[in-house]
Amino acid sequence: MRLLHKKRMEKLEGTKVRKTSSNHKSIITIKDIRVGEGYFTVIAGPCALENPEQGLTTARAVEKAGAKIFRGSLFKPRTSPYSFQGTGPEGIEILKSIRKETNLLIESEVLAPSHLELLNEHADIFRIGSRNMDNFDLLKEAGKTQKPIILKRNLSATYEELLLAAEYLLLESNEQVILCERGIRTFERYTRNTLDILAVPAIKELSHLPIIVDPSHSTGRRNFVASASKAAMAAGADGLIIEVHHDPEKALSDGPQSLGLAEFEHLMHDLRELAGVVKKSM
Amino acid sequence: MRLLHKKRMEKLEGTKVRKTSSNHKSIITIKDIRVGEGYFTVIAGPCALENPEQGLTTARAVEKAGAKIFRGSLFKPRTSPYSFQGTGPEGIEILKSIRKETNLLIESEVLAPSHLELLNEHADIFRIGSRNMDNFDLLKEAGKTQKPIILKRNLSATYEELLLAAEYLLLESNEQVILCERGIRTFERYTRNTLDILAVPAIKELSHLPIIVDPSHSTGRRNFVASASKAAMAAGADGLIIEVHHDPEKALSDGPQSLGLAEFEHLMHDLRELAGVVKKSM
Amino acid sequence: MRLLHKKRMEKLEGTKVRKTSSNHKSIITIKDIRVGEGYFTVIAGPCALENPEQGLTTARAVEKAGAKIFRGSLFKPRTSPYSFQGTGPEGIEILKSIRKETNLLIESEVLAPSHLELLNEHADIFRIGSRNMDNFDLLKEAGKTQKPIILKRNLSATYEELLLAAEYLLLESNEQVILCERGIRTFERYTRNTLDILAVPAIKELSHLPIIVDPSHSTGRRNFVASASKAAMAAGADGLIIEVHHDPEKALSDGPQSLGLAEFEHLMHDLRELAGVVKKSM
Amino acid sequence: MRLLHKKRMEKLEGTKVRKTSSNHKSIITIKDIRVGEGYFTVIAGPCALENPEQGLTTARAVEKAGAKIFRGSLFKPRTSPYSFQGTGPEGIEILKSIRKETNLLIESEVLAPSHLELLNEHADIFRIGSRNMDNFDLLKEAGKTQKPIILKRNLSATYEELLLAAEYLLLESNEQVILCERGIRTFERYTRNTLDILAVPAIKELSHLPIIVDPSHSTGRRNFVASASKAAMAAGADGLIIEVHHDPEKALSDGPQSLGLAEFEHLMHDLRELAGVVKKSM
Repeated sequence: MRLLHKKRMEKLEGTKVRKTSSNHKSIITIKDIRVGEGYFTVIAGPCALENPEQGLTTARAVEKAGAKIFRGSLFKPRTSPYSFQGTGPEGIEILKSIRKETNLLIESEVLAPSHLELLNEHADIFRIGSRNMDNFDLLKEAGKTQKPIILKRNLSATYEELLLAAEYLLLESNEQVILCERGIRTFERYTRNTLDILAVPAIKELSHLPIIVDPSHSTGRRNFVASASKAAMAAGADGLIIEVHHDPEKALSDGPQSLGLAEFEHLMHDLRELAGVVKKSM
Repeated sequence: MRLLHKKRMEKLEGTKVRKTSSNHKSIITIKDIRVGEGYFTVIAGPCALENPEQGLTTARAVEKAGAKIFRGSLFKPRTSPYSFQGTGPEGIEILKSIRKETNLLIESEVLAPSHLELLNEHADIFRIGSRNMDNFDLLKEAGKTQKPIILKRNLSATYEELLLAAEYLLLESNEQVILCERGIRTFERYTRNTLDILAVPAIKELSHLPIIVDPSHSTGRRNFVASASKAAMAAGADGLIIEVHHDPEKALSDGPQSLGLAEFEHLMHDLRELAGVVKKSM
Repeated sequence: MRLLHKKRMEKLEGTKVRKTSSNHKSIITIKDIRVGEGYFTVIAGPCALENPEQGLTTARAVEKAGAKIFRGSLFKPRTSPYSFQGTGPEGIEILKSIRKETNLLIESEVLAPSHLELLNEHADIFRIGSRNMDNFDLLKEAGKTQKPIILKRNLSATYEELLLAAEYLLLESNEQVILCERGIRTFERYTRNTLDILAVPAIKELSHLPIIVDPSHSTGRRNFVASASKAAMAAGADGLIIEVHHDPEKALSDGPQSLGLAEFEHLMHDLRELAGVVKKSM
Repeated sequence: MRLLHKKRMEKLEGTKVRKTSSNHKSIITIKDIRVGEGYFTVIAGPCALENPEQGLTTARAVEKAGAKIFRGSLFKPRTSPYSFQGTGPEGIEILKSIRKETNLLIESEVLAPSHLELLNEHADIFRIGSRNMDNFDLLKEAGKTQKPIILKRNLSATYEELLLAAEYLLLESNEQVILCERGIRTFERYTRNTLDILAVPAIKELSHLPIIVDPSHSTGRRNFVASASKAAMAAGADGLIIEVHHDPEKALSDGPQSLGLAEFEHLMHDLRELAGVVKKSM
């Protein structure tokens, strides 16, 4: 059994993502924020930016509650072409005003190489979503930038495949990569996806890269976000990316899995308590 | 989306396992032990009993480390007929000596209706394993006993199916049922199974029954047991069933996922610290 | 990659189910019927016997259409205890009258060791359903009988696990084992299960045992049964077990996946045409 | 149950991919080739072009054996950045010589919008691979071309998601879309993927678009390609895309699943026999 496991991971031998010693861990520094072993970083914001009021109200609230990074998505990959596709470039104005009025760093999704340039001045972190984990063209271009990148696991990717996707980034010049577990697709459909909590210790065992968890997409249900978030911290994750909306019932996308502002504040309080016990700096 | 979820669970309407109000939660009392909301109960012991020395050494150690219930399995369902199948009835003598020398309660697996009678005097809790979750004959007979029953989720069962299997027990006279998440089968094979941590809040939302987690079978890897255990507690689980062996390298079954005695003691220490924060009594 | 495959199957080395040479194939003889390489055997009948009229009407029709074996189930394992559980022992009278009025052989499911004796005189073939593939107690007892046994793959069992379950039968004295692919559980839920058609060549490559396909449970949809049945024959399967009901809309179980009498007759006609091309004797 | 199914597919109501009457079926015409109901079209060629000799030798042989379209891939999306990535634009010369020396149409994969222009003159059909099924940017650009497009199902996409991806193409001006089932990811790993043969009748029920099957990627094993191909035809598929290599043992990618030239010829012979019975014109 263990032989098999070893064999399965042999493609990782000699790669840049592979952990080469037991205490080799990468810490990613983004301005005054650190992501990695010993820290716990919360990224929060709406599924997608919709309008200035929604963006700013939510941003102010998540900052007040203790988040350090704002999830500010302009482009939404959607299963159906008839669903809301995001604000597009117009959302840049919203990002600008959030930067002006808060101290939050900005994290934003890139769907295509052209977005890397478009968002270069307006985002501090690029996110490559789960649907694009295998978009090797995008990976190669993103790897040429100097911005930290959050790479989300595809919903049917193995740990090995996630790490090899990250290798595309590291092979170019970019080593500031943060991995993200966001739920995998299984037969259980009561939850939107199945949060694979073991991805946390597995990635820590196999690689030196930080790993965070998305408790919103992995559950698809607001009521489960707190349990998923605390489980992630207890399992050793380095942070969370959480969907928060100032009015979830009216959200144009992912309303059912978004926390309201008070819920988020409450969760942050609980996480700070937990952080003390598990020796994470928040 | 939420309509769908509701529909999917409509088979649970009117069942005995269904939670009927937001604060209706069952507490199972077994002698002086309580399992359910507010408590955190650890069951520990080897995958299978092998001989008196292994049984007693492990039992004394897990008791000292704080476990309240001993996992004492005589019968092992095995994929291959050539694998070790357990001690069979001979193991009863080991259970007797553990009861004599410790204050641990005994939990033991039943594979067939005949085991219910055989183990009636020697076990305090019956376990129905994941392979038997759909063995309706066994469920019906177990439902007629007055012993608490741990019912493990089959590795491809939905939450609804797990709850309907429990309904077979409650429909007879036995309402002392504890559910157990032990990992589901997915495409990811680095771990033995995928721990579905969201089963914890989901079962709590749907049913009044307690739910515990098996961090050993769900991971299949000793190194991940601590992460899985802490995640389970943080997610709200009511306890754990952990494989512990006094000499894992020589275990006749499940050695790679069994904790050694010192590892278990260390884990129990960490869990007690965590319990304070998440308001669980251990 | 191929090394891995070899490794994964190493548990089969030296087993009785393993094919030991390229042309070693078992043919199971049941009275004047043969099941195995070169033959194509159709088993047909309702999901469950309901009453004499339903049983006899359906039996006469499937015989007329060319089926050689009648699916005559008295016991139904059901997810919910509130669903129809079969006629139980009363159905034996229906089996008797079908034997009297037709030349069909009788195939019937056993859920517990006691059913082996109960059905011994009334059935020519025992079926062990997918939920019981891992019921080792039942396997061992069934292995001691001299009746042919259809062993259905559990919905989350690998090929190796299916073959090792069959090994429990062969290790006792019974070598008349027919395997059955009946669909596996995946993320796709438009169909009840996902028909794993590659199980057919895989089992043929790994083992000398015959393999048939259940196009009813694997699809869950009447409209797909013909496609699944023809695909099974073309892929090399040795037969089918199909649910047929004289009035599917009123069936007490599995109505949506049962063929009506005319549909079954039409399918049998198509299969006979196909059999000529793929060199199967029907 | 059926209500659920209906609900699940409600996103397809009113879409352009949805079948609007029982006999509404699209036939795609590519020069003198037709793809769709009543026809059976075989696309064959290597996983990736490697050099002129490999390309031409294979092309001549598949044409002689009866294939009408050549699989001519210049770009290979690969899990690992260290694997062979295809010839890139240099392969265009090989495509030119194949066009000159055979009557085969050329089918070739596009990984990025820039490939659409690059291959515009040299390919008759574009392929969007399974990893790019959700690359909406690419879908939109491909939808603006006038070339037929083969859209492969992502290995974890539901039927609905595949059809909604196709909707992105149809919503632009391109209605010449051919869907392709290429295996889904499940727990069974003896085969590379699990061929979901029921995708064939399901897509036919839901949509008017043609559907073909990839027996190479779905099996990952040369020995299973014939079974998978015949099953696909018997299930009602409109064609196949098969990997063929003149020297599979030396192939730079996908060797274990590629047919040799003689094997392919033999398969084509068997398919022609089968086509007569299932009323397909080959």
